[in-house]
Amino acid sequence: MRVSELSSRTGVPVPTIKYYLREGLLAPGVATSANQSSYSDEHVRRLALIRALVDLGGLSIATVGDVIAAIDDPDMPLSYVFGIAQLAISDTDLHDPLDEADPHLATVDALTERMGWTVSADNPGRMGVARVLEAYERAGHPELAEIWDGYARGAELIAQADLASVQRQHTVADMAETVVVGTVLGDAMLTSLRRMVQEHESYRLFPAQR
Amino acid sequence: MRVSELSSRTGVPVPTIKYYLREGLLAPGVATSANQSSYSDEHVRRLALIRALVDLGGLSIATVGDVIAAIDDPDMPLSYVFGIAQLAISDTDLHDPLDEADPHLATVDALTERMGWTVSADNPGRMGVARVLEAYERAGHPELAEIWDGYARGAELIAQADLASVQRQHTVADMAETVVVGTVLGDAMLTSLRRMVQEHESYRLFPAQR
Repeated sequence: MRVSELSSRTGVPVPTIKYYLREGLLAPGVATSANQSSYSDEHVRRLALIRALVDLGGLSIATVGDVIAAIDDPDMPLSYVFGIAQLAISDTDLHDPLDEADPHLATVDALTERMGWTVSADNPGRMGVARVLEAYERAGHPELAEIWDGYARGAELIAQADLASVQRQHTVADMAETVVVGTVLGDAMLTSLRRMVQEHESYRLFPAQR
Repeated sequence: MRVSELSSRTGVPVPTIKYYLREGLLAPGVATSANQSSYSDEHVRRLALIRALVDLGGLSIATVGDVIAAIDDPDMPLSYVFGIAQLAISDTDLHDPLDEADPHLATVDALTERMGWTVSADNPGRMGVARVLEAYERAGHPELAEIWDGYARGAELIAQADLASVQRQHTVADMAETVVVGTVLGDAMLTSLRRMVQEHESYRLFPAQR
């Protein structure tokens, strides 16, 4: 198909498609003349992937380039692809590195050990949990840290579902793509589901009292 | 204490404190002279709460005003406080209302019924899940919707931990405050924990292969 049809099938404007081509997010089409190329269904799918990462994942174009390069590199181990996808969605103040002397990091590490998890020192989630523990404390509710157990067991079920979805794929390229899509869209899925169950549980426990 | 001490104890600059006072986020201190007031430990705690909502929750000042009014209203049922806190953290494209004819909403409703949840039509999470399901499909991975079961069971554990933390409080005002802090900071806690367990699980399952 021509670029105009690629645009109408995906809803992505032609100038945006050309921008993605220049940035290397999208592979060139097959040249059919000096100034025309032909695109395939593979381009349609890749464009939808890029839009999902940008629109729902909130990723910058540069970061989309990094995760797409990871998907397309047949020699990259899947655990590295996970790491790259995690970093892509962790570019926020919450996940900035903390001074290792921060006492909340020691609390996180103790809890991590209790759960039996192996987590590297620079995992962005480790920083985020430490910052939330500090905020509970400063806001006068240090006892909120007790939610950790329920949250940690919930997070285990969720990460296992993430990994199972990767294992169900048949090709290595699809596994890598699933890692990226699942990691990036998983936050949106998860925080949305939490809003649904929270409503259900709150009306069940607190019908109209306070 | 004077406003200067309130500032040094909380790390919040005096002009910012005065802004919060003008916006009604912080109750006035006790006037000690024509142009001085005295502030209490309650002000220190409330300032920390405001900073947590702004810095880690990403809430606007206007939205912080809404949730603080909900905390301070002794007649508001807790399930309403939950609703207000949820809306406060759902002001994103992901949670914008969808046309009820959107076929992905029907998929969400079918899955909700299967879980036995009671969720209102305008729950922001319902919109978010529908948008993610659509993105899976467009990106060529509709089978990713199968993660739903693990995610839904994980979200149940998490929402139950949220509610348990509220029930552990002794006063109604503390319950309402816990609802807000827990709801707003819970997303940060949860997505951080997911990054930790995902690293643990991915290295366990995919040590160096791909």
